[in-house]
Amino acid sequence: MAKMTTSEDAVNRHKDELSTLSNYNQETYNGSNGEESNGVTLTELLRPTLKNGDEKFTFSKEPTFEEVRRLQAEFTDERDWNQFHQPRNLLLAMVGEVGEVAELFQWRGEVAEGLPDWTDSEREQLGQELSDVLIYLVELAEKCHVDLPQAVLRKMALNRLKYPANKVQGSAKKYTEYKD
Amino acid sequence: MAKMTTSEDAVNRHKDELSTLSNYNQETYNGSNGEESNGVTLTELLRPTLKNGDEKFTFSKEPTFEEVRRLQAEFTDERDWNQFHQPRNLLLAMVGEVGEVAELFQWRGEVAEGLPDWTDSEREQLGQELSDVLIYLVELAEKCHVDLPQAVLRKMALNRLKYPANKVQGSAKKYTEYKD
Amino acid sequence: MAKMTTSEDAVNRHKDELSTLSNYNQETYNGSNGEESNGVTLTELLRPTLKNGDEKFTFSKEPTFEEVRRLQAEFTDERDWNQFHQPRNLLLAMVGEVGEVAELFQWRGEVAEGLPDWTDSEREQLGQELSDVLIYLVELAEKCHVDLPQAVLRKMALNRLKYPANKVQGSAKKYTEYKD
Amino acid sequence: MAKMTTSEDAVNRHKDELSTLSNYNQETYNGSNGEESNGVTLTELLRPTLKNGDEKFTFSKEPTFEEVRRLQAEFTDERDWNQFHQPRNLLLAMVGEVGEVAELFQWRGEVAEGLPDWTDSEREQLGQELSDVLIYLVELAEKCHVDLPQAVLRKMALNRLKYPANKVQGSAKKYTEYKD
Repeated sequence: MAKMTTSEDAVNRHKDELSTLSNYNQETYNGSNGEESNGVTLTELLRPTLKNGDEKFTFSKEPTFEEVRRLQAEFTDERDWNQFHQPRNLLLAMVGEVGEVAELFQWRGEVAEGLPDWTDSEREQLGQELSDVLIYLVELAEKCHVDLPQAVLRKMALNRLKYPANKVQGSAKKYTEYKD
Repeated sequence: MAKMTTSEDAVNRHKDELSTLSNYNQETYNGSNGEESNGVTLTELLRPTLKNGDEKFTFSKEPTFEEVRRLQAEFTDERDWNQFHQPRNLLLAMVGEVGEVAELFQWRGEVAEGLPDWTDSEREQLGQELSDVLIYLVELAEKCHVDLPQAVLRKMALNRLKYPANKVQGSAKKYTEYKD
Repeated sequence: MAKMTTSEDAVNRHKDELSTLSNYNQETYNGSNGEESNGVTLTELLRPTLKNGDEKFTFSKEPTFEEVRRLQAEFTDERDWNQFHQPRNLLLAMVGEVGEVAELFQWRGEVAEGLPDWTDSEREQLGQELSDVLIYLVELAEKCHVDLPQAVLRKMALNRLKYPANKVQGSAKKYTEYKD
Repeated sequence: MAKMTTSEDAVNRHKDELSTLSNYNQETYNGSNGEESNGVTLTELLRPTLKNGDEKFTFSKEPTFEEVRRLQAEFTDERDWNQFHQPRNLLLAMVGEVGEVAELFQWRGEVAEGLPDWTDSEREQLGQELSDVLIYLVELAEKCHVDLPQAVLRKMALNRLKYPANKVQGSAKKYTEYKD
């Protein structure tokens, strides 16, 4: 059915998984129950979300920004944590997570596209830290009533006006000048 | 038609707008041609993306992460800028943009949800700086081959396991302990 | 003797302490030998460096920036770590440490001068994280051949020219305008 | 005289320069009066503080941390700006300045010690941005009543205990493990 491919269904499926996961006890989280048959298993949950193949890299179509916002808002509501999630608190939390991303890159010198020399564990950790930055960025935008997906569309359009392709083509010098 | 509401159509419409915008000369960008009738005008382009009403705040359903990734990848390709967009460069660029967000909040003391005391111009600037953080976060994830939307879904699921709602409910002390 | 009060002697004394400390085995570090009588004890080493009294807060006169630079350079040399301490690596390390400072402040709302509600352990941790930021800032300046103490003197002089006291007195609005 | 070389005299001399500078009108700051003969001229003020010679790079012996703290405290007092300098505001200001340092490094790829390919103007800007980070770091420490020079001495001593030279010698792998 066409409906099977809509974004809402995908998120509903995910919600089922989440509620299954939420019922897991700590033992399960610690890995003693990897054969769970109904819902998603921890094995699946921990499978890498990184693709390192030859084909052009793309993102999955789901979830959307709004779905991430809603899931995170529900997570915060359920824990009665909105009292701690003022804009400046979320901003400092985002700074903390950016710091954790930086720690993964700090002693490596230059790093090539696709991270060819990184272990699976390092890639997994990177995926988690980038996600943490995103989660706080989305919550910060929400609490500031910034419609982030529309704002970014508009910012990308402004960038096209500001850096016309024919004027800034390829030169590092021009690039820096334009960026500054 | 149903197709009219799909995400692809919306992005195609946006692409038309973008190509219109890209053909604008610098004069237009400087505001001398606000009456442009075909395509989007600068007036529309600069309309606030912030909603500050009474209703519960939500994000627009579009664009998706993948659409943002693709539009930004095209922008970078067209300018031959991939040579500058190694992972660590993008990370430092993201740090720079986080710094610009911080500058908007730095002398204000506590800030309430919805930013009631901010001017339209300050809100607009915040929307742009948050967008810049997002753009570099998306490009960094892409160059690292991290499927960001799926990674964040998984991270949110892990957070649900790590912070069970019934255990961490509401207490600041518990919250901090759990977060640390 | 007059020489006893010079900065060099103070650092030499400290160097003796450091070499004593370096000879401590891990057991000592873990606290099983708090009665060490020659040189500094771990108890001393771990005494808070925070002053929270009524008198006006000031810093100790020692060590100087140059002493911090030299001690850290020796530390790096002895471990053959200069190979990892390129400017951009040190910058990312500093970003990581700033993130750790942010984590200490992120869920607290506004914080008053002198941190009246913080525990000794939280103060100690803050002192360590601020020190980490300083260590990487000093090493980054050194590797970039920036004479940091002189540069800051000059920057403070430029700030006096840029923000004349009689023009920017007290008003938040003026302050923000001038800072921006 | 011996007194001429003490740190206090140096700072007093600098204070004279500062008060001279503070009396400059904006015209002078804009460069129309470069021949000023008494006190420091703008030309001197803007001379690079960077050394890029063959000799081993060291910092100047002055000013000390306490002198930087005191000069900045006087600057803040004179402008009645303590009302804006709560700990979290200063932290966000520091994050903003770290972002400005990052912007100077973001599109360059790897950068060699001493910044051989940087222009004088870029070096000067780097000196200013690193100084801004330091100024806010010092003020943040002061408002938190952290004795920063002593805290850093203690942190470096703890690092010597944590990373014994004979155990962590030279290997990137070991380095990362120890640092993590």
